[in-house]
Amino acid sequence: MKTIEGYSKLSKTQKMDWLVENFFDGDKKVKEEFEGFLHKDEQIQKSFDEFTENTITNFYMPLGIAPNFIINGKPYALPMAIEESSVVAAMAKTGKFWMDKGGFKAEIFDTKKIGQVHFSFQGDVAKLKADFASIKQFLLENSAYLSVNMEARGGGVVDVELVDFTTQEPDLFQLKVSFQTCDSMGANYINTVLEEMAQLIKQVVSVEKYNDSPYIIMSIVSNYTPECIARAWVECPIEDLGTISGVPAQEFAQKFKKAIRIAEVDPHRATTHNKGIFNGVDAVIIATGNDFRAVEACGHTYASKDGQYRSLTHCSIENGIFKFWIDLPLAVGTVGGLTQLHPLVKRCMQMLGYPDARELMMIVAVSGLAQNFAAIKAMTTVGIQKGHMKMHLLNILNHLEASDDEKHYALEYFRDKIVSFTNVRVMLDQVRSDEVKKS
Amino acid sequence: MKTIEGYSKLSKTQKMDWLVENFFDGDKKVKEEFEGFLHKDEQIQKSFDEFTENTITNFYMPLGIAPNFIINGKPYALPMAIEESSVVAAMAKTGKFWMDKGGFKAEIFDTKKIGQVHFSFQGDVAKLKADFASIKQFLLENSAYLSVNMEARGGGVVDVELVDFTTQEPDLFQLKVSFQTCDSMGANYINTVLEEMAQLIKQVVSVEKYNDSPYIIMSIVSNYTPECIARAWVECPIEDLGTISGVPAQEFAQKFKKAIRIAEVDPHRATTHNKGIFNGVDAVIIATGNDFRAVEACGHTYASKDGQYRSLTHCSIENGIFKFWIDLPLAVGTVGGLTQLHPLVKRCMQMLGYPDARELMMIVAVSGLAQNFAAIKAMTTVGIQKGHMKMHLLNILNHLEASDDEKHYALEYFRDKIVSFTNVRVMLDQVRSDEVKKS
Repeated sequence: MKTIEGYSKLSKTQKMDWLVENFFDGDKKVKEEFEGFLHKDEQIQKSFDEFTENTITNFYMPLGIAPNFIINGKPYALPMAIEESSVVAAMAKTGKFWMDKGGFKAEIFDTKKIGQVHFSFQGDVAKLKADFASIKQFLLENSAYLSVNMEARGGGVVDVELVDFTTQEPDLFQLKVSFQTCDSMGANYINTVLEEMAQLIKQVVSVEKYNDSPYIIMSIVSNYTPECIARAWVECPIEDLGTISGVPAQEFAQKFKKAIRIAEVDPHRATTHNKGIFNGVDAVIIATGNDFRAVEACGHTYASKDGQYRSLTHCSIENGIFKFWIDLPLAVGTVGGLTQLHPLVKRCMQMLGYPDARELMMIVAVSGLAQNFAAIKAMTTVGIQKGHMKMHLLNILNHLEASDDEKHYALEYFRDKIVSFTNVRVMLDQVRSDEVKKS
Repeated sequence: MKTIEGYSKLSKTQKMDWLVENFFDGDKKVKEEFEGFLHKDEQIQKSFDEFTENTITNFYMPLGIAPNFIINGKPYALPMAIEESSVVAAMAKTGKFWMDKGGFKAEIFDTKKIGQVHFSFQGDVAKLKADFASIKQFLLENSAYLSVNMEARGGGVVDVELVDFTTQEPDLFQLKVSFQTCDSMGANYINTVLEEMAQLIKQVVSVEKYNDSPYIIMSIVSNYTPECIARAWVECPIEDLGTISGVPAQEFAQKFKKAIRIAEVDPHRATTHNKGIFNGVDAVIIATGNDFRAVEACGHTYASKDGQYRSLTHCSIENGIFKFWIDLPLAVGTVGGLTQLHPLVKRCMQMLGYPDARELMMIVAVSGLAQNFAAIKAMTTVGIQKGHMKMHLLNILNHLEASDDEKHYALEYFRDKIVSFTNVRVMLDQVRSDEVKKS
């Protein structure tokens, strides 16, 4: 069959049973394996089950630590949930590299967020625009009850604008609402206010007065927050960079700047460049219970804001000072969502000293900048493969079930050779047949 | 202190000890908690430890199942690793919705991948360009030994082009190399070939013959693959859509199309629209051991390719047929990387019937399309908050340590009320004080 009615209503065990029966030829070992990934504490497991739906087990991602990050003078150990080899090692090295050069600096440029009510309207547009000040007043007053708590925390609705999209699409208008959401990411609050405003604008803009009433298409938060930005940077006199893998400081600085410039002019390079930034960003975003798809979408849209997709980081060399910075738009929360529910997220927040949203934004921007520094530094000096190859080699060795002795031998053997699956297998076959001959 | 020398050389236990000592006031419970997330089988845990560096424990993400996906006539249950509520439920509903309407269709447009050698060159550019055919021949012949295995599998280097960037940046050139990498994502193979070509072009383009020799900035794969694209679509006569949450099929189809159009014209909306697509994409990408940062970066760059950031999905209504589709560029692997190492990734691949890279690309594109369909369908009919609120409510209840009885009561109570942290707390306080009075 392989299709089913009412899967969501089955118990977790029944869900596994159906899956194993239909997609694993009834192999009982598979169910045991899934169960092996459940947390032994039933209460903890239950909370994971309830994060989302049809949960059968937990997907593991390694949680690694990058210590030695000094940000605005304060030391941090950064929690990173990521499956890709070399990322945590690169971060840890970069933290240490900048530790004695003043560390990382960061600041926040505004924290405004946007929500939109999209609607069609075929009535008296001139009157709609002329009356908008009083319409706005009506929307604000009659939705105010939804913002009482947010206002008590210092946030709330900041503004409501009417946007006319009719030059691009017939009849299309928008309420563009801006918000401050304090330490929450704010999506639920924003969506609730928007859905209320959607009802309200239909009331106040009536067919009687405007020859048409708004036809609501949808009401939804925007994940694009170009006015909610963290800037992070490092800087030092060029000579303080020192000689890096044989490349003298002056040459390194110029080469590094050129590498950043390439990502500013070539979208093919910019994509991979920014991808590397998000290696650092997402690992911390996940570990702190935030939504990495939202942060990715926002950052990449921002990267394309001037009509060509470009680097999120920039580099300058002026008066002998090397400066490297990132402007990263992002919306994060330190209250609500998973931040209070996922036991490891709680611990990661504690590890960071319970940052508020602004501090977490700065930590995340630093993570992106540091990861990019590590990648560009490796690529412009030793090349990317040298760093990757050790982890790649270990992965291949694990796949071929190498013993610890074989791993040690292989790490030495491949120090000056090309790592490929075939090469590793050939080497292992040789080692193993030598062993057989000896015994 | 809070900073440390040689952290990476410590054992896992020592790493935890240092962390607990410095960032958790020495609280022993924290270490126990971290250890509680380790897999009980030491060998399995060891393989997770070796995926990346400074691993102290495993970060859990729920692994959920979306059954009832018919893709090109074949039934699948989709594995989804994701922490966000409502995503798996929305997917499961969408699979079922299309099951009796022909299911999902998908196809692949090419699978070409790109790598780049970036270099400065101040010599005889005219001669470099004139000689490029023979230079290319030299690069191909002398790096061929690295492609033997890939060629045996049907892939290899497809072309090498010289790109002149000097109008944008002085002296800047690029070898743009295209590859076919079969069922591997190919980054390691591509980077190895590129680093070899970087050495080779320095040899063949000598100071003697060209007045300068290339100064290599860096050699690296590009994650932007606009020629490695999966298209997925659904289509049916409008009336087959049926009435959706009270919205008749014709109205729903028009409203849905308008919603897609909004994401085509407004970058603020497009960001969130595509973010929703990646909810589906990334969940499957993670569950199948692929790199979601690479897939995100590629997709978002593609979304901005015509100079404005736009929707990745599109909708048409022609001759009474509703059609909804996505063109998603992405590079995935079904061999190499985590696909053979992560025990749950192996099982997820088995669950999908061991797809090759092309089939996995189609599955991933379908996941993005389905998630987007679910989001737009919800937003244009009942609104997004109704679906979210149940999970949001459960999360708040868990945070407030509600009993199962209290949860049942709350789900009923909030059926027609606004869910907020304060409202839930007030309700719980009331329920609990009523209980105290009764007892």
